[in-house]
Amino acid sequence: MINHRGPEFVPLLTRIVSRLKPFFGTQGDIEILSCVGTGGLEAAVVNALSPGDTVVAAPNGVFGDRFADIAELFGASVTRLPTPWGQAVDPIQLRALLEATAECRAVLLTHNETSTGVLNPLAELTAVVRSTRPEALVMVDTVSAVGSVPFEMDAWGVDIAISASQKGWMAAPGAAIIAVSERGWNAIASATTPRFYFDLVRHRDAQSGGMTAWTPALAVLFQIDAGLELMTTEGPAAVFERHESCAAATRAGLTALGFDLFAASGHRSPTVTAALVAPGEDWPRMNRAARERGVVLAEGLGPLAGRIFRIGHLGSVTLGEILDVVAVLEDVSVEMGRDITPGAGVAAALAAAMDSRRVAHAPEVAGSPSAR
Amino acid sequence: MINHRGPEFVPLLTRIVSRLKPFFGTQGDIEILSCVGTGGLEAAVVNALSPGDTVVAAPNGVFGDRFADIAELFGASVTRLPTPWGQAVDPIQLRALLEATAECRAVLLTHNETSTGVLNPLAELTAVVRSTRPEALVMVDTVSAVGSVPFEMDAWGVDIAISASQKGWMAAPGAAIIAVSERGWNAIASATTPRFYFDLVRHRDAQSGGMTAWTPALAVLFQIDAGLELMTTEGPAAVFERHESCAAATRAGLTALGFDLFAASGHRSPTVTAALVAPGEDWPRMNRAARERGVVLAEGLGPLAGRIFRIGHLGSVTLGEILDVVAVLEDVSVEMGRDITPGAGVAAALAAAMDSRRVAHAPEVAGSPSAR
Repeated sequence: MINHRGPEFVPLLTRIVSRLKPFFGTQGDIEILSCVGTGGLEAAVVNALSPGDTVVAAPNGVFGDRFADIAELFGASVTRLPTPWGQAVDPIQLRALLEATAECRAVLLTHNETSTGVLNPLAELTAVVRSTRPEALVMVDTVSAVGSVPFEMDAWGVDIAISASQKGWMAAPGAAIIAVSERGWNAIASATTPRFYFDLVRHRDAQSGGMTAWTPALAVLFQIDAGLELMTTEGPAAVFERHESCAAATRAGLTALGFDLFAASGHRSPTVTAALVAPGEDWPRMNRAARERGVVLAEGLGPLAGRIFRIGHLGSVTLGEILDVVAVLEDVSVEMGRDITPGAGVAAALAAAMDSRRVAHAPEVAGSPSAR
Repeated sequence: MINHRGPEFVPLLTRIVSRLKPFFGTQGDIEILSCVGTGGLEAAVVNALSPGDTVVAAPNGVFGDRFADIAELFGASVTRLPTPWGQAVDPIQLRALLEATAECRAVLLTHNETSTGVLNPLAELTAVVRSTRPEALVMVDTVSAVGSVPFEMDAWGVDIAISASQKGWMAAPGAAIIAVSERGWNAIASATTPRFYFDLVRHRDAQSGGMTAWTPALAVLFQIDAGLELMTTEGPAAVFERHESCAAATRAGLTALGFDLFAASGHRSPTVTAALVAPGEDWPRMNRAARERGVVLAEGLGPLAGRIFRIGHLGSVTLGEILDVVAVLEDVSVEMGRDITPGAGVAAALAAAMDSRRVAHAPEVAGSPSAR
C-alpha cells in the first residue's frame, strides 16, 4: 500500500488515465470509481439523468436490462426497444423507434452483451442516435468490450462510457472506469438525481489534483496499471487482433464439437462465446466434468441458466489457452457420449485462428492462467 | 481469480461473514459491498432513511460531518450536535439534544473519528439513544474501529454498523462491511430512498445463496479472508490488547519528543494518533524528512491540514513497528532542531507499552511492513 493522499499516488492515477484514453478513443475525461460495473452503470444514471427524463434503451440481454432497470428505478421513463436475446440490436429498428418517440433525453446502449455473447454494432447504433437525436445523450455499457475491441468515444459521439477493471484491463474486480464527453458534463451539471459516492464532478475535481474523491481501491489500481503496461506495449491493434483470433478459435472449436453458438452470426463477441447446451444433454454433469479437468465454464444467466454456457476470452488470453480449453471440452464431449473424431475440436480451432491470419502474439502474457 | 458465480465462492463468503460476527458482536446479518467506506455510509443512508426523515448527527471531525452531509444530500433533515474537533461526543449533551428534539428517525454516530484520533464513547452514546429514543435507528460509522477495538452491536443496540476492508481487517481498500439489526431491516423495508447498487435487501437475498448481488471485489475478499484467519487465530481479546499497547507506545513516544496530542485525554484512539505540528515548525520539511527515512505520515484533513499529523496503528501492527516509527521521528526531531535526549522517544514508548502490561504478542504478523 501507499498513501493515497500523498505524492506517491499522483503519478499512478495520472499514468492510468492517460493510458486508458487511446483505448477509449477519447481526449476527454476518464474517472475511476471504487465499485464494480453495476455501480458504474448506476453512476452514469444518477449523474446524467433526472427523475422524469424520457429514455430509450436497447437491451438484448441481462446487462442491457439491468441498465434500463437502474434508469427506471431512479425515476426515468424508459422505452425499451425489444430485441431477442442472441440477436444484435438493429440500427434500422432503433432509428424507427427514435423517430417515433416524442422526447428523448438519453439512449442506453450495451456494447458487448456478456450474457449472450453478442457484440452490438455500436458504430452504427451511435450514428443513428447522433443523426436522429443530436441533442440526446448516448450512454454506453462497454464494460466487457472497450480495451479488447475498437472503441471510438469521440468519433462515435458517445457521451458516457462505462467499463470495469476485471474485463479487458486484466485486473481484479473493484474499479469502474467511466469516460465522459463535454456534452456529458453539461448534462451532469443540470441533472437533479441526488448523488454523493458516485458524484462524477467530485471525482473530476479531485482528479485535477491527482487524487480520487474517496479512498481508492488501491490494489486494483496497481493491477490496472500493470495491465495497461502490457496493453500499451502490445499496442491496441495487436490486442484487438489477438481477441479476434482467440474468438475465432473458440467458435470453430465449439462448432467442430457439435455445439451450436447462441449469438447470431456476424454479431459474435470477440470477448465471450456462448454455446447452447445440446437438447437432452446433462448440463450439471458436463459442467462438473469440465471443472474436474480444470476448466471453469460460465453458466447462463437469468432465463438462460442451464440453456447455454459461456467461455470468456478477454484480457490476458492467448491462443494456446483457447486450444487447452477446447481440448478439455473435446475430452468432456467424448465422455458425454458425443461422436467426436479425436482432435477435431483443436484442429478446427487452430485452423480458424490461422485463417484469420491474426494468430495471437502476446509474449508478455503467455502462460498466464487466466483462461483456466 | 475464481468464478464468483460458482461453488468455489460460497465457502469463501460464508467463512468471512461467520468470522466477522464475533468482532461485530452480532448474531445478525452482515453484508459486504464492493465500495470503500464512504460508499458504506451512503448505503446505510439510502437503505434506512427516506427524504424528509428527521435525523440527529453527532459529528466531531471530517468523517462525522461526511456521514451527516450524505444524509442531508439524500433529503434528511439533520440536526448536528456540535462538538469541538479533538473532543469526544458528550453523552450528556446528546441526551439533552435528543430530549429536546420533537422527532428522531435515526441517530448518526462515529465510533472512531479517523481525522482527529478520537474514540467516541460508543457504549455510553448508544445507551443514551436506546433509553431516550427506543424507536430511533442507531447508525454507526465504525469504519476504523470494529475489528481493532471492542464492538458490541447486539448488546449496545446498534442497528447499522459500517466498516471497510482496509482498516482493522488488514486488506486493501475496496469492500465495505455492513452489519444490520432486525430493527434495521424493518426500517429498510419501509424506507423510500431509491437504491440499486447499494440495495442491502438484494445483497441479503443473494447471500442466502452464498453469493453477492453483483460481481464482488474478489481479490479484496481473499485479503479479508486472510486477515480474519490471522485475527481469529490471535483472538479478539489479544487483538484489542495489541492495539491498546501500540497506541500507548505511540502516544508516549510522541509526548516524550515534545509533541502535543490532538485528541482529548481519555478519548484517544487505539487505532490512530493525531499530534499537533509545533507552532512555527516547518511541516512540509518535517514530513519530507520522515518520508526520506521510510515513514509516511498522514496529514491533517480539511481544516486540520498542516496543523496535525497522524500515525495509523491498526490491523497488522506490532510494537516493534511503532518503536521503529518513533525512532524515525526522534531522528527527524533532532534534525528539526528540537532538544531531544537521544533515545527518549523509544524509551518512553517501550515503557508505556510495558506499563500497559499488554506488550504486543503477534507472531503471525511480526515483520509485516504495514507501519512503514
